[in-house]
Amino acid sequence: MTDNCRADWIAVDWGTSSLRAWAMTGDVVIDARQSDDGMGRLGPGLFEPALTQLIDDWLGDKCLPVLACGMVGARQGWSEAAYRPVPCAPLGAPFHRIHPDDRRFTVHIIPGLSQLDPADVMRGEETQIAGFLSSEPDFEGVLALPGTHNKWVTLRSGLVTGFRTVMTGEVFALLSGQSVLRHGMGQGWCETAFAEGVTAAIERPADLPLALFALRAEGLLKALAPDAARARLSGLLIGAELAATRPMWQDAPIALLGAGRLSQLYAIALDLAGAKARVTDGTALTLAGLTRAFRLLQESP
Amino acid sequence: MTDNCRADWIAVDWGTSSLRAWAMTGDVVIDARQSDDGMGRLGPGLFEPALTQLIDDWLGDKCLPVLACGMVGARQGWSEAAYRPVPCAPLGAPFHRIHPDDRRFTVHIIPGLSQLDPADVMRGEETQIAGFLSSEPDFEGVLALPGTHNKWVTLRSGLVTGFRTVMTGEVFALLSGQSVLRHGMGQGWCETAFAEGVTAAIERPADLPLALFALRAEGLLKALAPDAARARLSGLLIGAELAATRPMWQDAPIALLGAGRLSQLYAIALDLAGAKARVTDGTALTLAGLTRAFRLLQESP
Repeated sequence: MTDNCRADWIAVDWGTSSLRAWAMTGDVVIDARQSDDGMGRLGPGLFEPALTQLIDDWLGDKCLPVLACGMVGARQGWSEAAYRPVPCAPLGAPFHRIHPDDRRFTVHIIPGLSQLDPADVMRGEETQIAGFLSSEPDFEGVLALPGTHNKWVTLRSGLVTGFRTVMTGEVFALLSGQSVLRHGMGQGWCETAFAEGVTAAIERPADLPLALFALRAEGLLKALAPDAARARLSGLLIGAELAATRPMWQDAPIALLGAGRLSQLYAIALDLAGAKARVTDGTALTLAGLTRAFRLLQESP
Repeated sequence: MTDNCRADWIAVDWGTSSLRAWAMTGDVVIDARQSDDGMGRLGPGLFEPALTQLIDDWLGDKCLPVLACGMVGARQGWSEAAYRPVPCAPLGAPFHRIHPDDRRFTVHIIPGLSQLDPADVMRGEETQIAGFLSSEPDFEGVLALPGTHNKWVTLRSGLVTGFRTVMTGEVFALLSGQSVLRHGMGQGWCETAFAEGVTAAIERPADLPLALFALRAEGLLKALAPDAARARLSGLLIGAELAATRPMWQDAPIALLGAGRLSQLYAIALDLAGAKARVTDGTALTLAGLTRAFRLLQESP
């Protein structure tokens, strides 16, 4: 226990590969920490020690609520928080409560969302969606969250009405880094090749299986530059994703979460597909969503 | 040198991961060997020692011709054998000749085939195709060679007129073994799930990106059996391959090379797609093709 921390709650983003925590007073961050103790490296019984180690000197006499989102609530996490089925608001109290051995804090895990048909799940993104809605409560349309597993989310009247996950980021990493295509892949980029890939996949999505090995063959026969090969592969996969998700985003307002390069690529690709998307800074959305969850906890009976 | 081997030539199938050799008298096998010294583990200067080690006691006073096919002729192989552009017969003498330091043998590498538009390449399959044609010289239609990188080959009047490579086997291995889908994959099989995957991908190939993560979600939400998940993934990828290659095989006689389980799966999938394919034992085709190459070498001036 220290005297110099006056946190009244703690926000935690606990994913597969990392653990991030913020000491909070209301919606003000007074300290922040992170570690590599993601769900992926923790077995049963190791979650509480990992968290305590990170936040120990934020804790005092008062029992602090910890609001946590992400894979910490998965079956392989600290304790399984059952999915909430859509349509529903991204957050809903009460959350999944854990009573740690350490009496200086309690943990409230935010459940992920599920959709039965077509089957889909998310954990963590619901909190980002809540963060987005806390600043844009009237948004109606489609939210895209680019990442390893991209989420396409339909929002109506503050509710998540449906969503789909596409593994484009993971497939790109496997094909560019581990398949035979890796021999022809650079680390750089080529805007033109990216656009060619997007356009080809949008126009002929069924031809994608043929387009993959052609990258290797063009490298051997036509001296396709390695940077262009990498960019075209990315374009092909993102274009195929857009072709598959078109019924969701066609004619809908689209917001891309995340100010990073990946979101810019999706904006370019959507533009090539004839749609306009605005890119919203997604950096602080998880914390904004956790703050929203803390308010809900305070308001709940 | 030994007296007990009367080989008059040596057949070699030298791929990425293995080296196979046969001591031959005409078209009769008198001995066979193999090792793990595939191209993938050999650097410059290591090819001749690897081969000599394997065939040393087949060699004698007479300089024997070695006929070799596969990745040994790639840029990273022993010596690059330039591709022969289609349309062309699968084999054509003279082959790419190497003069080893060891004077007891010479090496003739069979070049792979290339196609400029759409760009594609093969190395090794041309020899299997020649082996197939040596027993069925009048076949006209499409030859499918299932494997890690499947080849679809159009044959007319004994010539390869075009071909395409689809990386279905490698993509299946990466997705089932290394992506997030691995958590829901069994080692077994389910015929029904395979057929469902094939049919779904043939009917809606553009939806493939959505169908992948659904395997994981159905495992979590609907208790999709791990064996069914694996079979459906295989079906989805093979179905997508058939949708993409349909212009090649539609209305053409189809021969599937290889009597193994993979060829049977392609036969089932083609049947679901409305096409009949006959399955031909592919085991001895490489050796038959190498034997055909030896005859061509003898006939060449």
